[in-house]
Formats: sequence, C-alpha cells, structure tokens
Amino acid sequence: MASKVVPARGMRDVLPVEKARREHALHVIREVYRSFGFDEVETPVVEELSRLESGQGGENEKMLFKVMRRGLAADEPLLPADAADLGLRFDLTVPLTRYVATNAATLRMPFKAVQIGPVFRAERPQKGRYRQFVQCDIDIVGEAGTLAEVELVTATHTALSRLGLTGTTLRLNDRGVLTGLLNGCGFAETDHGSVLITVDKLDKIALDGVLAELRAKGFGEEQVAALEKALTDLLPLRDVARIGDGALPSTVPATSIANLQEIAAALAVSAPDLNVEFDVTLVRGMGYYTGPIFEMSLATGGSSIAGGGRYDNMVGRFSGRDLPAAGFSIGFERIVDEIALPTDPAGAVALVHPAGADAGALLRKQQELRAGGARVALVRQAKRMQPLFDALVAEGYTRVVRARTNDEGVLEFSEPSELSAS
Amino acid sequence: MASKVVPARGMRDVLPVEKARREHALHVIREVYRSFGFDEVETPVVEELSRLESGQGGENEKMLFKVMRRGLAADEPLLPADAADLGLRFDLTVPLTRYVATNAATLRMPFKAVQIGPVFRAERPQKGRYRQFVQCDIDIVGEAGTLAEVELVTATHTALSRLGLTGTTLRLNDRGVLTGLLNGCGFAETDHGSVLITVDKLDKIALDGVLAELRAKGFGEEQVAALEKALTDLLPLRDVARIGDGALPSTVPATSIANLQEIAAALAVSAPDLNVEFDVTLVRGMGYYTGPIFEMSLATGGSSIAGGGRYDNMVGRFSGRDLPAAGFSIGFERIVDEIALPTDPAGAVALVHPAGADAGALLRKQQELRAGGARVALVRQAKRMQPLFDALVAEGYTRVVRARTNDEGVLEFSEPSELSAS
Repeated sequence: MASKVVPARGMRDVLPVEKARREHALHVIREVYRSFGFDEVETPVVEELSRLESGQGGENEKMLFKVMRRGLAADEPLLPADAADLGLRFDLTVPLTRYVATNAATLRMPFKAVQIGPVFRAERPQKGRYRQFVQCDIDIVGEAGTLAEVELVTATHTALSRLGLTGTTLRLNDRGVLTGLLNGCGFAETDHGSVLITVDKLDKIALDGVLAELRAKGFGEEQVAALEKALTDLLPLRDVARIGDGALPSTVPATSIANLQEIAAALAVSAPDLNVEFDVTLVRGMGYYTGPIFEMSLATGGSSIAGGGRYDNMVGRFSGRDLPAAGFSIGFERIVDEIALPTDPAGAVALVHPAGADAGALLRKQQELRAGGARVALVRQAKRMQPLFDALVAEGYTRVVRARTNDEGVLEFSEPSELSAS
Repeated sequence: MASKVVPARGMRDVLPVEKARREHALHVIREVYRSFGFDEVETPVVEELSRLESGQGGENEKMLFKVMRRGLAADEPLLPADAADLGLRFDLTVPLTRYVATNAATLRMPFKAVQIGPVFRAERPQKGRYRQFVQCDIDIVGEAGTLAEVELVTATHTALSRLGLTGTTLRLNDRGVLTGLLNGCGFAETDHGSVLITVDKLDKIALDGVLAELRAKGFGEEQVAALEKALTDLLPLRDVARIGDGALPSTVPATSIANLQEIAAALAVSAPDLNVEFDVTLVRGMGYYTGPIFEMSLATGGSSIAGGGRYDNMVGRFSGRDLPAAGFSIGFERIVDEIALPTDPAGAVALVHPAGADAGALLRKQQELRAGGARVALVRQAKRMQPLFDALVAEGYTRVVRARTNDEGVLEFSEPSELSAS
C-alpha cells in the first residue's frame, strides 16, 4: 500500500467550500479598505534572513522557516548557519518595514497600507493552528495624531460589519497608562516587561493568579499590594469618558489619557454602533507598542478578532527614519469560520448530463443559464446521484437541470427543479 | 550611509496601482470560473521536497528554493542534501497531484479545480521575470472526453473577455498529430522528444532554421526532407474542419483528428467569438501532454497568454490511480499589464484636511461621501499639494473636497471639485 500522501507537516489544503468563504471574506475586506482610501501592496513571501532576524519579531524569530542558498556544492559539508540566506516571513510587519525603506521615494505620506497574505511559523502543530496562515493588516505610517487610530478602527469595524460581524466591542488602553500605573506602584522600569507579561494573563488566571505569579517572580509585597489595589479599583472602569479627573494614578501621563479620550470621542461619531470600552488589563503581547493599543471582540465575547496599536519608531528602522505608525490586524483565521458562505444571488444550478453528450449543445445551455447570473456546474450522470447531490447542496447548489439525448441524438433539457440533499 | 534596502534578489514589491489591477483581475477570473462550476482550492506554498523532486517538473526542479529542516544542531556541519526537507512549489501542478491523492475521499468527480497562487523559481533574474510570480490554473480531473477541453477553453475565454481581452485566437494541435507526423517522416519514437524541441522553435528560427538544427543534430537527410515537405504542406492548414479527409498523413491516429474536430465544433457553439485554428507547429514544452494541446493569443499576435492540454496518467500518480486530466493555465503575469485599472463607479474623492482636524467630524464626512459608493481617501494638507494630487490622479482619484477649521473651531467642507494632475 502506498504511504499516506498528505500536505507538509503542520500545513493544510483549503477545500472548495472553505476556500469560497475565505475569498469572499477577503474580497469584502479589500473593497472596504479600498473605499477608505487604503492602498494595498504586496511583498514577497521570502525576505532576507538578516531582516527577519533583526530582533523585531520577538519569539516569532525562533519559528523561522529558512531557505537554503542556491548553488551550494553537493559534497561540501557546512554549518546550518552558513547554509541559509533567506526565510519565509513570519508576519507582515517586517516586510512593511522593509517596503517603507525600499519605496520611500514613491510613498505618499501618510502612507495607508493594506497587506494581506500568507505568513509562516514553524510552531508545534496543534488543532486549528497551522504553520501557514493568512494575516490581514492595515497600517498608517506618517500620522502622529490619533486620527490614525480612529481611521484604522473605523475602517476595520466597517469591514467586519459588512461581513456580518456586528455588535463588536473595542477595548482600549495605552502603553502610557500601563507604564504610569506600574511606576505608581513602585515597580522599576526595567521590570515592567516582566510584570506586564503576567498582567496579560489576567483573563486566564484571574487577579489572584496574577498576584501569586508576581510574588513567585520575587516582586516585593508592597508593589504587589499596590498593584492589587490599583487593578481592583480600575477593573470596573470601562467608560473612557471617565478615565480623566483623577480616576487614574497621577503617574499616568496626561497625553495618554487625552489620546484615549480623543479616540473614543471620534469613534462615537464615526462608528456609533461600535461599543468602546477602557480596559486597564489590555497589554498586547509585543513590546514594540508605544501608545494607544486596542482589541476588538465579538458581542458573544471570547477571544479578540482584531488587535493593534501605535508603534512609533519601528517602521522607519530599515530606512533610518523616525516614522510614527499605527496598525490594526484582523485575526483572519479566527473570523473566517464565523462568516456566512457567499450566496449566488441568481442561484446555482447543477446541469446533469450523460457521458459523451454533445458538448456544444451542453455548453450553450450552460451559457444560457449563466446569462442570468447563476453559477452552473456541469455534472456527469452517475449510477448513484444522491452522494453527488449531497456534495452539491453543501457547495451551495439549489437547483438541478437534467439533460438527455433523445432518439434523434439531440440534447434535451428538463425544467429546473429543486436540488435536495438526502 | 545605510546600504540599499531592497527585496530579496529576483523578488519585487507590488505597488498600489499595480496591486489594484492584479486583485481586480483575479477577482474577475475567480468569479467567472466559479460561475462555470469550477471549485477553487488552495494548497500550501511549501511541499515536501521528495514530491517536488519526483521528476514531474522537468527543468523547474533545478530551480527549487529548498527549505531547511528545523531544529538542526548549530555546530554540526552537514551536506546540503541532508539539510533540507521542504521546498517552495515551482508550479501548481505538483500540488494539484498531491491534493488529488490527499483528498481522494471527498473529491466529486469529475473534479473541476481552480488554483491561483504564487510559485517560486530560482531563475537567473532578468527584466520582467521574477522569482516569485502568480500562476492561475484550471484543471478537470476524471473526464476522458473532449468535454473537458471544451469547458476549459470556454471558461477561460469568458474570463479573458470579461477582462477586456477579446478577439483572441485559440491554436489547437494534438500530441497524436505530432507523433503520427514524425512517424510518417521516419523518425524513431525515441527521437521524437529531440525533434519536437527543435520544431517548437519554428516561430523563432523559421523552417530553414528548424531543418538546419535537425541536420546539425545528426538526423538523416531523408527524414529531414520528409519533415520539410510535411510542414510546408501543413503550415497553411488552419481550418480544423479540413484536417480530416487525408489532409494529415495516414500515420496520424483517427482519434486525434476526431478529438480536434469535436473540440472545434463545440467551441463554435459555446464560444462563437473565439477564433479557433489548427496549428501543426504547436508543441507545448512539457513532455507530459498526451492528447489535445492548445494556446490562446491576443488578436494583436505576440506570445500566448494561456496554454494547456490533456495530460492523462499524471495527476493520479501520487495516489496510484489512473486518472484522465486536462488543464489550462492563464499566463497571469503576461496579461496583467494589458488589463484596465478597476474604476470606481461612484468616483474617488481626496478629502484634504488640516493636520489635527476634528477626527470625528472628518470621518463622518468620509462616511457620508462613501455612502454613495465612492472611494474616499483622507489626505493631510501639505505645503505643496500638487505632487500629492499627481499621485492621487495616478491612483484613480477624480475629485477633491477640502476641509478647513473655521473660527469657531468647527470643520467646514467645500463642494467637490475636479482633481487635476499638473
């Protein structure tokens, strides 16, 4: 028996029904971002290894797929580090940074970019997570004001709504709020990263778990107790309008508070059906964020379906320019199962025909049915049709037309009838 | 000075205007193929090296980008052949073959597949050719009759016409015609491959060049003279209806002739505006074709924009099944420059605003303009607007609305006016 033929480890095939759903979703997202004046760009799947290993990618750099140099002598052993010169990108941010440097001369600033494409991480394979997956990012480069955040959120909210993902909540925080909070509790700046990694687990291990982990990490009881009080006070605070007026510690910069309030006030106008909340526990994993950070969740709760924030000083690094930037990334693989299949407004018809039927007559009938906008599949007559019909119904086909060759050898067609699954 | 930051060698970035054109074209192609009942599938960019090196890819296998094994010990030298386990696909046919084997249990036969995606070849970089490029294939697996060829051509012709590529010509031939012709001229079967490689150059080096190359390859004068006579007779023969009745040598199988005539007759009904011609010199490079072969060209002539044919016995090889199959591939990178930019039916507006403008009011205006279906870009006021306007016109923007903050601090908007390039 032949060995099992499967995709490469951790990879997968996308089958027709799911592929139709994915392309439909991507088309809607593209159209909406385009209507907001975002420009889609495409970068290669492959980048130079030195850029992918420049430290910008954090843990992702450990999950690199490396591409071997071409033209290596077959009989000369070499060290792994000398064998590779390229890598598969692990996100779309490193390529964006490289793109901004490469195309600096032609960028219209602020540069509002859409990037959609596959990224690769050699993670341990696990259910529902694949080593190749699609990211869908928008970024605004060159806008220091909160207008950037407001545009990013409004456009993304509009795209998700168009896909039927309504009633969403945006949770907002600011790295300055977190820094100010930890300063107020007496944590040293050098410890903030470690403390925030623990605070980020609050929705998983609850406040007690966070405090226990901080004690286990060796932080002093005084700081931990101060943080407990601060978080206990601030956890119920959800109304962004109320985070001023001394609600936050005096160690939080006024600009952080003002930025969050500006963003929330503008979103109340530009995206009135979006529920915007302050969330002091929102950290966002990556250390590169410098200002407002945000995540969007479905009304039904659960994990976030989009996330982003301001990350000044990073996009310009390959070009040696200081560029303000903010981005928002849709968790495409998380939303795609929530999205309805595209429908065929004019229906979808299975045109069942005998083997060897007159191809010209058959395709003329197909053209005639297609002319009304319908999707029309030619389906060859088989002994057992029901399994085929079941598959066709799953693919969205709703009607059937049957062709038969009459005694004069001419193809005749039935009227359309309803296609039923068993 | 920083070194130049560029994409990996032989790769490129796709800038906004071209990306818009590409995505528009792909969307139209997808929609048309879907309306013909083709099912799009997606396979990973990466496949196991053993499959990519199985001999199916001909010369392309020499241009593989190989992916290194993960978890190699950093200090242990090894041979290149031991360092890689995966590769970037060089076409979409090997992945289709693997897909058919992997998903055999769920395939509805005949399986009509669309695959669109990037492929990779480490070719010597040259103008207009890149190491990553998009292929766009349709294939019908499990249909032995010419209905497959007719469907492939009709659907592709419809897609290209929808993109404005009308007045196309389909050139048709059959591997059986070529084999029969060479047999009739006295060439040994084992030499057919070599002879066909030379015949394939006919449009570049003309008949005299072909004959000279065959003589240089050492073929006998008798065979070369016979081929000269046969080609001279057959070159003017373009009408598929006239290739029967002894027009072709008796060594050409009757089924080859019948198949071509069936295909042409059906296409005259299903694609009446497609010009279909017999072309005895059409060879198609790959040795795996087994029956009818075809290429499509623009009315303006020049190189073909799509090509394909029947290749029975190949798609089933990883699954150990004998499966008839035929495919057609659009030369996407060749057509994309010929395609008009997508237009915005409701226009495209540049909404020019001062820095620091009220984001809520600004985005409300954007939503109002977008509501009519327009594309609306926020553009920050700059000292020199004309370079920005020139770029916007190139991106398809046609109108401008100007925002200003009045003395009461309220944002006011001008009526739309025409946007002009300098």
